[in-house]
Amino acid sequence: MDEKEIEDLLQKYYLKDMHYEDGKILGSMYTKPPEIALKAFFKFYQANLGNPGLYKGTVEIEREVVKFLLRLTSGKDDFFGHVVSGGTEANVIALWAAREMGYKRVLATQDAHFSIRKAANLLKLSLENVEIIKGRMSIEDLERKIKGGDIIVATAGTTPLGFIDPIEEIGKICEMHNCFLHVDAAFGGYVIPFLRELGYTNKKFGFDISAVRTITIDPHKMGMAPYPAGGIVSKENIFEKIEIEAPYLMVGKNEGLLGTRQSGSVAAAYAAQLYFGWDGYREIVKKCMENTNYLVKRAREENFEILEMPEMNIVNIKIKNVGKVKKELYARGWGISTNPKYSSLRIVVMPHVTKEIIDEFLGELKNIKKSYGL
Amino acid sequence: MDEKEIEDLLQKYYLKDMHYEDGKILGSMYTKPPEIALKAFFKFYQANLGNPGLYKGTVEIEREVVKFLLRLTSGKDDFFGHVVSGGTEANVIALWAAREMGYKRVLATQDAHFSIRKAANLLKLSLENVEIIKGRMSIEDLERKIKGGDIIVATAGTTPLGFIDPIEEIGKICEMHNCFLHVDAAFGGYVIPFLRELGYTNKKFGFDISAVRTITIDPHKMGMAPYPAGGIVSKENIFEKIEIEAPYLMVGKNEGLLGTRQSGSVAAAYAAQLYFGWDGYREIVKKCMENTNYLVKRAREENFEILEMPEMNIVNIKIKNVGKVKKELYARGWGISTNPKYSSLRIVVMPHVTKEIIDEFLGELKNIKKSYGL
Repeated sequence: MDEKEIEDLLQKYYLKDMHYEDGKILGSMYTKPPEIALKAFFKFYQANLGNPGLYKGTVEIEREVVKFLLRLTSGKDDFFGHVVSGGTEANVIALWAAREMGYKRVLATQDAHFSIRKAANLLKLSLENVEIIKGRMSIEDLERKIKGGDIIVATAGTTPLGFIDPIEEIGKICEMHNCFLHVDAAFGGYVIPFLRELGYTNKKFGFDISAVRTITIDPHKMGMAPYPAGGIVSKENIFEKIEIEAPYLMVGKNEGLLGTRQSGSVAAAYAAQLYFGWDGYREIVKKCMENTNYLVKRAREENFEILEMPEMNIVNIKIKNVGKVKKELYARGWGISTNPKYSSLRIVVMPHVTKEIIDEFLGELKNIKKSYGL
Repeated sequence: MDEKEIEDLLQKYYLKDMHYEDGKILGSMYTKPPEIALKAFFKFYQANLGNPGLYKGTVEIEREVVKFLLRLTSGKDDFFGHVVSGGTEANVIALWAAREMGYKRVLATQDAHFSIRKAANLLKLSLENVEIIKGRMSIEDLERKIKGGDIIVATAGTTPLGFIDPIEEIGKICEMHNCFLHVDAAFGGYVIPFLRELGYTNKKFGFDISAVRTITIDPHKMGMAPYPAGGIVSKENIFEKIEIEAPYLMVGKNEGLLGTRQSGSVAAAYAAQLYFGWDGYREIVKKCMENTNYLVKRAREENFEILEMPEMNIVNIKIKNVGKVKKELYARGWGISTNPKYSSLRIVVMPHVTKEIIDEFLGELKNIKKSYGL
């Protein structure tokens, strides 16, 4: 087939997809990256950090990104880390390394990301649920259930609600019981440090809590980098626990979960962090929180009920018949997600979710409510 | 930092990497994709098939790629499959699904890809080595070791040597013992069908062998697609064995290993297959095999020893002190890989490895041999 025909065909499929440019994707933890990140992506997309011997420059770039992840997580420069394909890979790596160190059982809430359940199944680690109180891990239930040798997964920015588990208290309990504490800050890692500077919170989630051993923190979420750019950082070298001999590679070994590691997004994550810098990311969080508060205020004015005051830029609007409303919104071009458990529409207030979009969305929601008497 | 400064900094790192454009990467199973594949990549790179509800067009594209993978593997259109991040993810998915079906032990040769060892460790499946005879799985040793409930991993195009295990015979033995046969054709899947048409071989490796249940076959290797585009195809729906509930996603579940799935490369794999078509891929294989034979002939003329006549476009040149030679070549800008076990330099004759590059390389190798008396 010639190039023109292929482009026409691709366009046909493209039009069936939803796009961030339209602003109507409200349920995703991703947003369009800045141009410079895309330039970096396209310059380095053929680098494969699965075979790092060939890509000395990209290896150095990865180290720079990891340094920034360590700054966000209150870690030290000589801690360890990798840019990986996303939060799932990062969580699997952390739990895999912990299993190799002898830890056997995972304790997490049901609001922990589904990749924790996936990792436990994959790794044949038993998994026990810790109860949730007001969307956060119950310290009392944790104290009841914890045993020596457990892996505790705390979440800094839960996927359904964007809430922060009480990680400082969890850390103290982990230390008393010699447990492994993994923090999933895939979303919150690029938000909480700035919430602190902006006065929204004083919570900690990172290596300044001494029990924390590993942290998931994804540049391709609030770090404004394109997929696939997840992150995993750790206090000790967890990667050598899971490395495998690969004699034909220049470096002779492979560490991490995947073999091939597309590295355009590693360079793009670097470009994004240079472009925004610490202060730029704070401005992004500031704007997202302003829009979050605007959404809460406007929704209440329209007599919608907010599940609980958001802790970061994720808002849940309680709705009867939430499945039906989701379908209606979807038919009208809105990429919305729901929390069936909380009977709520879940809006991630990413940078593309502007005040105009919020107004348009609430207008649509009002119409649906009226038509269906929901 | 401003965009210009960032670009300058990226360029500094870029120059430290090796690049396919230089032609001197001889040890990689990747090559520069055609322009139209890159256009497709950049058009769809923000699609995330981890959340397929938003990307109906990309889902359809993925199905078209899978159809082509099924054609290459002699499968039927209603078989199952996904485009994933690479061979490692594909192999993990196959073995994970097999474990969920009750299979417990993996039998593979030491020349199986390292991701098989990785998957066995990850999944807590015991792993037993089957002996190798002339670079291929020993049928006798397999018969000695096989037990009901085993997972047999055969390779169609081994990573070190590019050899094809005797998969038809292995299949018969698997059927006698009710075993699960997974074929890793990550590299060979886009080569062997064309070797057959070109008269190089009459070997089978795919679903036309009735025992074959799952096959790994990677577009980002000989399919000329950019990273990350691996492939996993199966006769039954292995994906529902490992799916996980993900209520906040539009589709309510997540199947596969990763959460986020960057899908630019899915569109790019599609563009590449439309661009080349069946006949175009055959021409690529034809050219690569001509260059393979040229390399063998010229190397022998220069008194280098070839390990054994290559079965596909991977050539091993026996060298004393192979580690030292590799370092020397590397210092001179050659991205070469080695098989320490076979004391050989390993050259993957990808499309960028032309006759000119081969002559230049052998000249360099002769000089090194002379200087060091190797």
